Amino acid sequence: MTTQQLVSEIRKKKSFLCIGLDVDLNKIPTHLLQEEDPIFSFNKAIIDTTHHLCVAYKPNTAFYEAYGIKGWKSLEKTINYLNEKHPEIFTIADAKRGDIGNTSTMYAKAFFEDLAFDSVTVAPYMGKDSVEPFLAFEDKHTIMLALTSNQGAFDFQTKTVDGKELYKQVIEASKSWINSQNLMYVVGATKAEYLADIRKIIPESFLLVPGVGAQGGSLEEVCKYGMTNTIGLLINSSRGIIYASNGNNFAKAAATKAEELQKQMETILK
Amino acid sequence: MTTQQLVSEIRKKKSFLCIGLDVDLNKIPTHLLQEEDPIFSFNKAIIDTTHHLCVAYKPNTAFYEAYGIKGWKSLEKTINYLNEKHPEIFTIADAKRGDIGNTSTMYAKAFFEDLAFDSVTVAPYMGKDSVEPFLAFEDKHTIMLALTSNQGAFDFQTKTVDGKELYKQVIEASKSWINSQNLMYVVGATKAEYLADIRKIIPESFLLVPGVGAQGGSLEEVCKYGMTNTIGLLINSSRGIIYASNGNNFAKAAATKAEELQKQMETILK
Repeated sequence: MTTQQLVSEIRKKKSFLCIGLDVDLNKIPTHLLQEEDPIFSFNKAIIDTTHHLCVAYKPNTAFYEAYGIKGWKSLEKTINYLNEKHPEIFTIADAKRGDIGNTSTMYAKAFFEDLAFDSVTVAPYMGKDSVEPFLAFEDKHTIMLALTSNQGAFDFQTKTVDGKELYKQVIEASKSWINSQNLMYVVGATKAEYLADIRKIIPESFLLVPGVGAQGGSLEEVCKYGMTNTIGLLINSSRGIIYASNGNNFAKAAATKAEELQKQMETILK
Repeated sequence: MTTQQLVSEIRKKKSFLCIGLDVDLNKIPTHLLQEEDPIFSFNKAIIDTTHHLCVAYKPNTAFYEAYGIKGWKSLEKTINYLNEKHPEIFTIADAKRGDIGNTSTMYAKAFFEDLAFDSVTVAPYMGKDSVEPFLAFEDKHTIMLALTSNQGAFDFQTKTVDGKELYKQVIEASKSWINSQNLMYVVGATKAEYLADIRKIIPESFLLVPGVGAQGGSLEEVCKYGMTNTIGLLINSSRGIIYASNGNNFAKAAATKAEELQKQMETILK
């Protein structure tokens, strides 16, 4: 999916919502545990009730790997279901990978070829040659960690490197990498006030913004400092939507929560 | 496995060699491709001929994920085979994971519980609360990226942060994290001259050192600057050993290469 197609979907749906599919078997409705594949059943139900309210889904791979082969199967079924039923929806493998060149290529194959995701999240610590193998897949998007939503972001990311914070150095440097036009960046909603500065470095790039909802970030603040003429934002909510209820009505409850966010976005987009 | 047990294995085998099981179907002997699980068959053959020459095996997860569910099955069979046949060998899931707290816990479960590895590699970019969930598994080891073997290490890791290189800040900071005694660190053999400085910060910790062999690092240099009274080094070689031959004799050829390194290590340990 091209960035243009994503923007056009956002305008059509009046939503720049991404729903995080971080499925923990300890948190889903107990009646699903009797199903053959509880994780996929949960995801399918959530997708069926929310797909018209969001433009992206983001399974975090940790929640699938924790269940081994079974979990990997659930992830495969989820991405295949999305690609078959809703090919217009942008898919993100939230995997935070990164390794030396030939190894990053294998990760890129895992998420872009074996599982046909539109994008994958990557970590920048190992530098340019750990990220460019992802960017080499020209019809895909690589979403790099810049300033994350957690407290640990202050351990290294905001530290000053040669007169500028590390996360800014990371974003700056990445602009010169091959196929950098395929980069998006992760910036936590809990750090909305940093967005103005980030927009000075990357005025156009899409940002994936976690941390609205359960982690306490504000949608209004994020849009105030981060929105561009072509939107430029994907706001992710995971737990706040998918665990809205753990009763039989969980999928409907998730849709209600998603719609609340979508309506706020519609107002902002006006 | 405790660090003490690892040190005792090193002394017994006169080896601190770790063999990287980075299996690429394009590089293994073609006759194996007819087997039901070519990756596991390859690993099993390599393990059977080399286990007396090394103290650790390190599958890099990228090479398994690239083949999807099949690959994950090969990884599971490999770790199970190692734990059944050679429980005295230290196992490393080279996964370079890291995410916000509850998500890192899921990754830790994936590699410490579902797949029973002794250790996992993690990336430090997201800070303390992204690594401590791994350290919470007190009978396991967490191996954090410090200074990697690739060119991209110079993009951010060696940049000066508050008067000190980032990789040094990362190591320093990690010493105050909960259960930091379970930390080991990745330091590339291609940057052996940095080891003297690193030993000033962590005089005792074990270092996992990739980059000897195919990447050009020197075993002698690494030992000169990095070895401690209790060894403190695991030297990894992947491609240099496992792809020594792609003929029928591949496993024997791998053992010959592994033995060359083991003999050099034996001399150094004297």
